Amino acid sequence: MGRAMRLSIDVRLDYGISGDADVLLQIEAAAMADQKIESESLTIWSDSPIRAVRGEDGIGQRCWSRGHGRFTAEYKSIVAVSRERVQLELYPATPPRMLDGELTPYLMPSRYCPSDRFEGFVGREFGGLEGGPLAAALTEWVYQSLEYRCGSSSGETTALDTFASRSGVCRDYSHLLVSLARAGGIPARCVSAYAPGVDPPDFHAVAELWLAGDWRLIDATKMATCSDIARVCVGRDATDIAFMTVFGQAYLWEQRVTVTPLD
Amino acid sequence: MGRAMRLSIDVRLDYGISGDADVLLQIEAAAMADQKIESESLTIWSDSPIRAVRGEDGIGQRCWSRGHGRFTAEYKSIVAVSRERVQLELYPATPPRMLDGELTPYLMPSRYCPSDRFEGFVGREFGGLEGGPLAAALTEWVYQSLEYRCGSSSGETTALDTFASRSGVCRDYSHLLVSLARAGGIPARCVSAYAPGVDPPDFHAVAELWLAGDWRLIDATKMATCSDIARVCVGRDATDIAFMTVFGQAYLWEQRVTVTPLD
Amino acid sequence: MGRAMRLSIDVRLDYGISGDADVLLQIEAAAMADQKIESESLTIWSDSPIRAVRGEDGIGQRCWSRGHGRFTAEYKSIVAVSRERVQLELYPATPPRMLDGELTPYLMPSRYCPSDRFEGFVGREFGGLEGGPLAAALTEWVYQSLEYRCGSSSGETTALDTFASRSGVCRDYSHLLVSLARAGGIPARCVSAYAPGVDPPDFHAVAELWLAGDWRLIDATKMATCSDIARVCVGRDATDIAFMTVFGQAYLWEQRVTVTPLD
Amino acid sequence: MGRAMRLSIDVRLDYGISGDADVLLQIEAAAMADQKIESESLTIWSDSPIRAVRGEDGIGQRCWSRGHGRFTAEYKSIVAVSRERVQLELYPATPPRMLDGELTPYLMPSRYCPSDRFEGFVGREFGGLEGGPLAAALTEWVYQSLEYRCGSSSGETTALDTFASRSGVCRDYSHLLVSLARAGGIPARCVSAYAPGVDPPDFHAVAELWLAGDWRLIDATKMATCSDIARVCVGRDATDIAFMTVFGQAYLWEQRVTVTPLD
Repeated sequence: MGRAMRLSIDVRLDYGISGDADVLLQIEAAAMADQKIESESLTIWSDSPIRAVRGEDGIGQRCWSRGHGRFTAEYKSIVAVSRERVQLELYPATPPRMLDGELTPYLMPSRYCPSDRFEGFVGREFGGLEGGPLAAALTEWVYQSLEYRCGSSSGETTALDTFASRSGVCRDYSHLLVSLARAGGIPARCVSAYAPGVDPPDFHAVAELWLAGDWRLIDATKMATCSDIARVCVGRDATDIAFMTVFGQAYLWEQRVTVTPLD
Repeated sequence: MGRAMRLSIDVRLDYGISGDADVLLQIEAAAMADQKIESESLTIWSDSPIRAVRGEDGIGQRCWSRGHGRFTAEYKSIVAVSRERVQLELYPATPPRMLDGELTPYLMPSRYCPSDRFEGFVGREFGGLEGGPLAAALTEWVYQSLEYRCGSSSGETTALDTFASRSGVCRDYSHLLVSLARAGGIPARCVSAYAPGVDPPDFHAVAELWLAGDWRLIDATKMATCSDIARVCVGRDATDIAFMTVFGQAYLWEQRVTVTPLD
Repeated sequence: MGRAMRLSIDVRLDYGISGDADVLLQIEAAAMADQKIESESLTIWSDSPIRAVRGEDGIGQRCWSRGHGRFTAEYKSIVAVSRERVQLELYPATPPRMLDGELTPYLMPSRYCPSDRFEGFVGREFGGLEGGPLAAALTEWVYQSLEYRCGSSSGETTALDTFASRSGVCRDYSHLLVSLARAGGIPARCVSAYAPGVDPPDFHAVAELWLAGDWRLIDATKMATCSDIARVCVGRDATDIAFMTVFGQAYLWEQRVTVTPLD
Repeated sequence: MGRAMRLSIDVRLDYGISGDADVLLQIEAAAMADQKIESESLTIWSDSPIRAVRGEDGIGQRCWSRGHGRFTAEYKSIVAVSRERVQLELYPATPPRMLDGELTPYLMPSRYCPSDRFEGFVGREFGGLEGGPLAAALTEWVYQSLEYRCGSSSGETTALDTFASRSGVCRDYSHLLVSLARAGGIPARCVSAYAPGVDPPDFHAVAELWLAGDWRLIDATKMATCSDIARVCVGRDATDIAFMTVFGQAYLWEQRVTVTPLD
């Protein structure tokens, strides 16, 4: 079985808001079988009541709040991660038609993961593969083909852009792997996460592929391993897993994410 | 209360398939409180077993099948629709932060409904409005601003394209209304449906906006009224509500959709 | 006839370059009948020889150079602008088929000015107008419909994005006016320029529409008038009129543009 | 030296027009040093006078006309092509900063050839190459990587789409090669042409890369060789080289292109 790792997470967000705006935060590590929340506190400075709602697929939670002129939040937690190592090569393929209904959206193209455009590439370059061996080959291909470079992409960058620019940050690695997997008939979703090795320290984005009856966590950047990742939330792409969505205009003042392995 | 209408629905799909392909159909009218399925039959000619899975938001169902060289399906049903008239103007606004978690995705931009791009337009042109009055104004604006013209759009057309071209078919009206509503803070989803007045006869696409605690059915083309629409399924945009998704290559041979009011 | 205005222009660019890169500068005011260059100096710190080539449509010039680790350039000039006031309403329309061959590209869609998408909008909203009156109506519409907001767009923003966001900077105003004019059958090009009233001070972008046998200079932001604009270059859109194009990677260190009216 | 080939070209266009529309045709083979027009006739059925204007870069010509309800044109010619074989590998590289001014636009991204997006791919995959050897490698890569499949693309398809779908028609091969070449610092333009081996028979699109002081004709589909291609016109991408541009709405009735090698 996998080894356990305890992570200390410390986040501070400080934004300016034009007038008033509803703000949706998604920054709390999710309580799940393979990641226990030992302690946690979320503080939001706001005159309005804070309201938590469930995250996508029932994983984690989102927190609604309201900013006026300024929006400041702090999150601290200790999470114990205990997760088996993923061995992609061993998982057999499941044909799309045998998948459960809640997986259907993860076979479909989405805004930043236009997987339908990649069917030709996956078919030609990875033609004989399926299931776990395909997932392993795609993961390695993404890792080898991209260069990790801060500032090389923006919030509008799609997997199609990344496929040509051959560079990006964690978000782009996640989008491209998810797009290629879906194009190969494997359900895939994006995951917002915390991990200690992310450089520069920031929110992290990884992927989950549905193989052999479960979601398999993969970091195509190889900055994190599946044993030191604490999931925050999941979704179709960056739209769903954004750490903050402002229903109005906001400006970054300061943002800090610190993830430290304990003992 | 609304008047009841019975619809007879008759669909035939006939496609060529390159080799083998998993096929996902979404053509059955959904059993719901406001639309009763009096009788129904779905026939798919296939050597593989047919497998039904639930649709998005638990509405209706999708049917997995497999095509080999050819894919033919027939669907016949009688649906009794009984639905209150929607009076958009009367519904008060709900701020985004007060919405339930399962509505969050319907506030977000999606591939064909990039609602984040429309916040400026909605803010400037419909600035003082919110909730039902905003929904009514947006619906009327879409109806007045677009020209219904077959062939004026394609499967790749987004709401941004439609906003500039000022023309489209039902799919485009639905995408644009949904985009504008989300940009105005109203959860909105796309709906695949059957309706008798669609010209030329085809699958129909309409919209649902979440107002005053329920989904409100709106056809911005005005070809149908909410009392003669039978929903098939719902979703974020055309990606989710496609009547057929082929995991491979398919070619249209023949397709026929007939919807007749009974009395 | 128009009044004359003398402008003092002072520009400093300071960029970091990854390794070596060919750099194309387009920052010199163009010598033209309605703008005389009284004095000018361009200094580029580079080990490689500087090479000037003609600009698009034979207007102004581009300057090729090479950066190594750093790229610094300074440009100073005094330009006397003497230009008749543009009276758009008075110009009759010229049908596309009567235009000279060198104008054809300016009727066509381009990357940031996808004018073909706007034919529906222009046809429906400005249906009875053509030529100068159409140009005047489009200019006023762009001015009234957009909000000038720094940071509201990026180098990837197209006129389609601006049309929905209803905000932008000078580049976006220029792109949208040019797109609408072309959609209405009027040749239109983008113009890089210097003007004293630009706030914050920066390179400026305006438009030229071909009406009654000549190019008519228009600033849809109304920050400048046609009597105080010194053209640098022209082209189909921002691609052609960029002040600097680096064939490699560059990073902004410092950039300053000062334009002062003299006496 | 190259062998001579005589081509008989026979084109018929028959379109429906909604109301009246100005129509721009670009279907005449261009008179050039390496392709002599032995005989030619262009017939357009129209009440309006026909007007010829020069094509892009002074190559060939465009013909303005006007359609009313219907637009029919016939073009017949005999062209003698005599052109040296292109030997890409032999051409040395020219740095962008040494290129003449009229080549600058062909280094720049355009709507269907967003070459800036491909700099990462070209840099990583073809890093040590430049000039002719790079051109040869890119041409072979495009040929090997794409599948020629009618109907796999549309008029909106960009080189970015083709790069992921790995399929397309001649237009897409041309766009992708041109995009990659520009990303590698080689000026590249799209060429509309006639060639006898095109299957199914249609207008053809190829590419020209500027190497060792001249334009080098390349058909990345390998359906034609440089000795049996008759150029019609050139430009930045499909926008410039369209055989017909209608300033209004048109519907295809019938179109036929026949190119036959003589003796």
